[in-house]
Amino acid sequence: MAASEGTVVLAYSGGLDTSCILVWLKEQGYDVVAFLANIGQNEDFAEARKKALALGAKKVHIEDVSREFVEEFIWPAVQANALYEDRYLLGTSLARPCIARKLVEVARKEGARYVAHGATGKGNDQVRFELSCYALCPGIKVIAPWRLPEFYRRFAGRRELMDYAEKHGIPVPVTPKTPWKPQPQRGRAPKTRAPPGLYTKTQDPATAPDTPDTLEIEFKKGVPVKVTNAKDGVTRQAALELFVYLNEIAGKHGVGRIDIVENRFIGMKSRGIYETPAGTILYHAHLDIEAFTMDREVRKIKQGLALKFSELVYNGFWHSPECEFIRHCIGRSQELVEGKVRLSIFKGQVYILGRESPQSLYNEELVSMNVQGDYEPADATGFININSLRLKEYHRLQSKVTVKQNE
Amino acid sequence: MAASEGTVVLAYSGGLDTSCILVWLKEQGYDVVAFLANIGQNEDFAEARKKALALGAKKVHIEDVSREFVEEFIWPAVQANALYEDRYLLGTSLARPCIARKLVEVARKEGARYVAHGATGKGNDQVRFELSCYALCPGIKVIAPWRLPEFYRRFAGRRELMDYAEKHGIPVPVTPKTPWKPQPQRGRAPKTRAPPGLYTKTQDPATAPDTPDTLEIEFKKGVPVKVTNAKDGVTRQAALELFVYLNEIAGKHGVGRIDIVENRFIGMKSRGIYETPAGTILYHAHLDIEAFTMDREVRKIKQGLALKFSELVYNGFWHSPECEFIRHCIGRSQELVEGKVRLSIFKGQVYILGRESPQSLYNEELVSMNVQGDYEPADATGFININSLRLKEYHRLQSKVTVKQNE
Amino acid sequence: MAASEGTVVLAYSGGLDTSCILVWLKEQGYDVVAFLANIGQNEDFAEARKKALALGAKKVHIEDVSREFVEEFIWPAVQANALYEDRYLLGTSLARPCIARKLVEVARKEGARYVAHGATGKGNDQVRFELSCYALCPGIKVIAPWRLPEFYRRFAGRRELMDYAEKHGIPVPVTPKTPWKPQPQRGRAPKTRAPPGLYTKTQDPATAPDTPDTLEIEFKKGVPVKVTNAKDGVTRQAALELFVYLNEIAGKHGVGRIDIVENRFIGMKSRGIYETPAGTILYHAHLDIEAFTMDREVRKIKQGLALKFSELVYNGFWHSPECEFIRHCIGRSQELVEGKVRLSIFKGQVYILGRESPQSLYNEELVSMNVQGDYEPADATGFININSLRLKEYHRLQSKVTVKQNE
Amino acid sequence: MAASEGTVVLAYSGGLDTSCILVWLKEQGYDVVAFLANIGQNEDFAEARKKALALGAKKVHIEDVSREFVEEFIWPAVQANALYEDRYLLGTSLARPCIARKLVEVARKEGARYVAHGATGKGNDQVRFELSCYALCPGIKVIAPWRLPEFYRRFAGRRELMDYAEKHGIPVPVTPKTPWKPQPQRGRAPKTRAPPGLYTKTQDPATAPDTPDTLEIEFKKGVPVKVTNAKDGVTRQAALELFVYLNEIAGKHGVGRIDIVENRFIGMKSRGIYETPAGTILYHAHLDIEAFTMDREVRKIKQGLALKFSELVYNGFWHSPECEFIRHCIGRSQELVEGKVRLSIFKGQVYILGRESPQSLYNEELVSMNVQGDYEPADATGFININSLRLKEYHRLQSKVTVKQNE
Repeated sequence: MAASEGTVVLAYSGGLDTSCILVWLKEQGYDVVAFLANIGQNEDFAEARKKALALGAKKVHIEDVSREFVEEFIWPAVQANALYEDRYLLGTSLARPCIARKLVEVARKEGARYVAHGATGKGNDQVRFELSCYALCPGIKVIAPWRLPEFYRRFAGRRELMDYAEKHGIPVPVTPKTPWKPQPQRGRAPKTRAPPGLYTKTQDPATAPDTPDTLEIEFKKGVPVKVTNAKDGVTRQAALELFVYLNEIAGKHGVGRIDIVENRFIGMKSRGIYETPAGTILYHAHLDIEAFTMDREVRKIKQGLALKFSELVYNGFWHSPECEFIRHCIGRSQELVEGKVRLSIFKGQVYILGRESPQSLYNEELVSMNVQGDYEPADATGFININSLRLKEYHRLQSKVTVKQNE
Repeated sequence: MAASEGTVVLAYSGGLDTSCILVWLKEQGYDVVAFLANIGQNEDFAEARKKALALGAKKVHIEDVSREFVEEFIWPAVQANALYEDRYLLGTSLARPCIARKLVEVARKEGARYVAHGATGKGNDQVRFELSCYALCPGIKVIAPWRLPEFYRRFAGRRELMDYAEKHGIPVPVTPKTPWKPQPQRGRAPKTRAPPGLYTKTQDPATAPDTPDTLEIEFKKGVPVKVTNAKDGVTRQAALELFVYLNEIAGKHGVGRIDIVENRFIGMKSRGIYETPAGTILYHAHLDIEAFTMDREVRKIKQGLALKFSELVYNGFWHSPECEFIRHCIGRSQELVEGKVRLSIFKGQVYILGRESPQSLYNEELVSMNVQGDYEPADATGFININSLRLKEYHRLQSKVTVKQNE
Repeated sequence: MAASEGTVVLAYSGGLDTSCILVWLKEQGYDVVAFLANIGQNEDFAEARKKALALGAKKVHIEDVSREFVEEFIWPAVQANALYEDRYLLGTSLARPCIARKLVEVARKEGARYVAHGATGKGNDQVRFELSCYALCPGIKVIAPWRLPEFYRRFAGRRELMDYAEKHGIPVPVTPKTPWKPQPQRGRAPKTRAPPGLYTKTQDPATAPDTPDTLEIEFKKGVPVKVTNAKDGVTRQAALELFVYLNEIAGKHGVGRIDIVENRFIGMKSRGIYETPAGTILYHAHLDIEAFTMDREVRKIKQGLALKFSELVYNGFWHSPECEFIRHCIGRSQELVEGKVRLSIFKGQVYILGRESPQSLYNEELVSMNVQGDYEPADATGFININSLRLKEYHRLQSKVTVKQNE
Repeated sequence: MAASEGTVVLAYSGGLDTSCILVWLKEQGYDVVAFLANIGQNEDFAEARKKALALGAKKVHIEDVSREFVEEFIWPAVQANALYEDRYLLGTSLARPCIARKLVEVARKEGARYVAHGATGKGNDQVRFELSCYALCPGIKVIAPWRLPEFYRRFAGRRELMDYAEKHGIPVPVTPKTPWKPQPQRGRAPKTRAPPGLYTKTQDPATAPDTPDTLEIEFKKGVPVKVTNAKDGVTRQAALELFVYLNEIAGKHGVGRIDIVENRFIGMKSRGIYETPAGTILYHAHLDIEAFTMDREVRKIKQGLALKFSELVYNGFWHSPECEFIRHCIGRSQELVEGKVRLSIFKGQVYILGRESPQSLYNEELVSMNVQGDYEPADATGFININSLRLKEYHRLQSKVTVKQNE
């Protein structure tokens, strides 16, 4: 190779695919800078660095984005009660825009015109990754080998990849994955039960402890600021540590497993088996404190925005004007979402035990059956009568129409 | 009392409140016809009839609406995945319009101009009850003693009610409540943990069986048509029997308890502790088979309609033109929602194990990572590029603006 | 009258109804403070003051809220493109919360426990008025004579009101109404054509000038900041003056008349004939500059919020947490809505002639048919193919199903 | 060229572009079948046929789809009050799926594996066209020359196209366009005023007649079934004739011109100048009869569906499961939308004069200010009080918070 095709920053995982891609990119004439994001996964980053350099990377960037991942990406999803298609808590979808943002930053630093990734050509991650890159740096070019015929035809199956790896001295065992990155097991028949070994972050509920953990989670502005374990008094306050601790407790009790069929952005249905331990606890806790402190009608509007938010995030539009707009609006709705929720974590399930808040809109006296408080029961009569006006009118018309038809 | 004020049909429960109301209505000069709806609760109806007659009811109607309750009210809620404020499965809200419809029918048969009920003046049930009556029979007059000053001032507390009961020979012990009618424990401080004794339909998950039940539920047009227990081969097919069986299995495993703060239609927040055992299983099962068989975009539209449906039902608008319209639309969306879902029921939790359907939109080949099928990965490049167009334009404008601001 | 019932601040219009109410309130034992809001209407306020005092008002407050009405109430509606039921530009609905806010302020100043108004018991204004008062001052008591049996039975018709007026020396001719307050002509048969005399703010389009006025309206943050008339160079910049000028120009050309049947909050349909001259011009101009500068997807979300906003305002919920929340969100969406729109005003119609903006998201090169710009046509192929994936799958299933049915 | 590449059915307009494409496709080795759809445009179809054959078309299909266009595509849009981005009445977007459906039918008849069209690579029509083809016939292949580098590089500008035409004996003057197909004038600077010559279907309002036409339009199930001109008694009943007549009247009075900036599906903004004469009259008339006969809450839900419908149609998803679903739902909402609307058409504007309907939900007595009817004004007090409950609670919390902050 004479003149370089230029520099490409590769989102490198240390695994087989991106190792092969690294070597292949060099073959195509690129200078390759490897980039690894630490979003909290258990990974031997030193080992990965060594490996990347051994495979010919010009340079290796290992960036710890775990704190910003929790604070800037997971927390807004908690505020939103984000749930894709009523069930999926959006783990990976939140990680991609975080990683891509840092990748683009590295590319800028390195003066690279290209970035590359190892996501497949049928999945969501390619979209999430690339939309983020283009939104943040319109001039960048993304190389996605799994969508290039010269690449995917050459590596039509696992076999060819292994052969290539062997030939180029690429070690085959893959490094472990992140503790809160969901493990999509796509391609498996939706009918077949998921093998237990799939789950890496959660205990099987059947063998989970026989005694619950009772947690108290404190929220400010819709975001957890403190967790206390009633059993042993353990507390966590900093965002990342708090999140890691919830993952640990939830994982121990088998909380957060789902098996779904979902709709990918590109239009196909796929089966997904996910674990979102901490996310599941936070989903329930936040729903509860929000319902306690937020006006009913504000909640309804916010719920509509959150539905849209979840779809946008799943589809890869985190870094878009509309998602930015929605995050702002949802953030605004959270200003008074504050208080403590107590929960029991047991055998795969999260139970709300109670809640309290200085911002509670619950009024003991108003709701009591023994005191009228400020409430005048006769008002409810007028309320019901007026609400029935429209219904009566409709009925009258219907009757009139029916009568006519029978004449 | 000389001339009668006319006939009133009272929705009678056999309990203390409606027994006192029965006597009080007679005192006011009405002829009282007692009406009891059997929606599947464990109740000694013969005993209640005797009691009503003893208290002076001119006549007693006991109507079994349990089958229509399941088929015409619960099934549409299952089709909708109805969930009020993200958590409540709407038990009582579904029963009220069913009971009211029969009540109005009885009133018509009896030539009664009045109906009466024992719902309080602060709750949702008065609204659900009365809107149903007015919508179905605009000329009817509803008597709601708990909203009449002459009644609620006289019976300001439990004490006065008991005294009145004693004086008029009204037996005090209340008959048990329906097995699937939620037990709202309103008025209790939201902070305090619910006493275990509150729950009558579900086992405490802590003491639930250590081995799961595995069910297969078959759906046609979005409605369960058969349940099979894999453990013992038990099957149920008729709607009511199927529903009762799911209540039994779910109850045994402690499934379906929630503790929430909710927003009543009249505008106050209240705490609700509910049990919806069968409903919880069906919610998960239906979500799953629907996601498997329904187009993504149809699902999104239907989800929006279902949000509205849940709110309407909760607020008492089952018998309204808009709810009728939404039910029709949701029904239409369910025509191809068909197939079998396998679930494990264990320690308060429902786990989806797999699903299959002749109407599946899942395409094994399309989603596979080893076969391209009809799919051309290069198309995804164009798809992503076009989707990024708008984001790049926005970024360019933002940059331009930023540059200007810095000049 | 011995001891006073306390002080009531009456929203006084100078007309027959509120004059009678003033006297009647005194009869009931209240000390009456009359309050008149100047929201820009042509009214002889000095005369009204004299009259109120003559009728026994203890005091008269005349408050000019015209500037805040335009800036704090009309401008947010312009930003929202607020339109109730696709047609009504919300004139009066915007005025009520503005007037009520000042009324409550006066009541506080006067230490009054009561406020009163002359709105009827069947309309929207009573709701708008009272919800505003209660939201801003929960302890206040509202007296609405037209809903009190002792009042409305006494004044069952126009006749009785006139008699009462005569008896108490209340002059009968009503003062003219505000130039931009719509003139609801409810109660008229929806079939009958509106008499031309109804309209007070707009010229009949048939007799409007034969030459158009051409205006250029400049917006900043979604709000008009300058209008220039191309014909004579007249400019207006201050909010109130600008609005009054647009009313004048639009009125001259017969712009802004509508004849609709609308749904009142209390559930009945009524016919409304409205004039919103300035509002109509601003609606078209703002829509145009917004479409030019706002991202497509932000626009769609904002459109949903605006639909809700219009409904809330119409129903009287301006001073509510949800309306405040939506105003905040819409405000946020307007930050880059800036630029100039040129319009022609002619014979009842507003025509957009062109627009320009430093914040335009329109990209001449991108859209051109002669230059590709940054655009790669082949990308559209991938985009279309991926979008068709889902449709093809659906078709395949349908065919399979159809085939089966035919077997 | 020996063996044929197969048969392609070309959507042929008779114009320069598709004439060149016809010849070019033959050059590439295809057998070309020309297809022309008559959707009501003024076109010399015999001439076009001759031309296509002269250029080498193997066969020419001229299909009259004007009746189905009006009945199956325009009527549902009328029922929906379809409006894209608050302004555009969707002319072309409705024609594409109609034409594509027939095209696919012809391709099936001819046993052709290919269809081709002359839409550009930056517009919406390519998407509308192709999504329709793929949805209706997943196996078809679409050839879009304007997206093929070998084509668009060869014909980089008008010049090259003209040269090619001359060389191959293709006559240059383009045949006139359809009377109700909008004339998009994209690419023109949004700032510049549209040249008057652009408009082909509508008179300049300035020179339009000085006397209005007064029409009465009768609807059944949300669809116009009869139009009567009050001036001369002309009536039209059949769908196509009625629509053509409305185009004529509206065109004469300059009704239906808009100048907008819109968002294309592929993500860019473009300027569009459209004429939709009949559509504009029908939009206003249908809105009016719908508001008169449809329950308020049904209307609100239907409005949300219609917003989605408009977006789907604009983006080319007419033939999709979601659009089919929405059309069904909207159709259902129209069952009672029936009655007559009287309108005046004058100088570019449509004025509603009145309406009547056997299905009217308007109740004269209920709305009257002189009769109470069935209405109890005191009920409104309860209605308002209950509605204010939530607002008062919110205010109390806000005050509490404020007080705390000031302490």
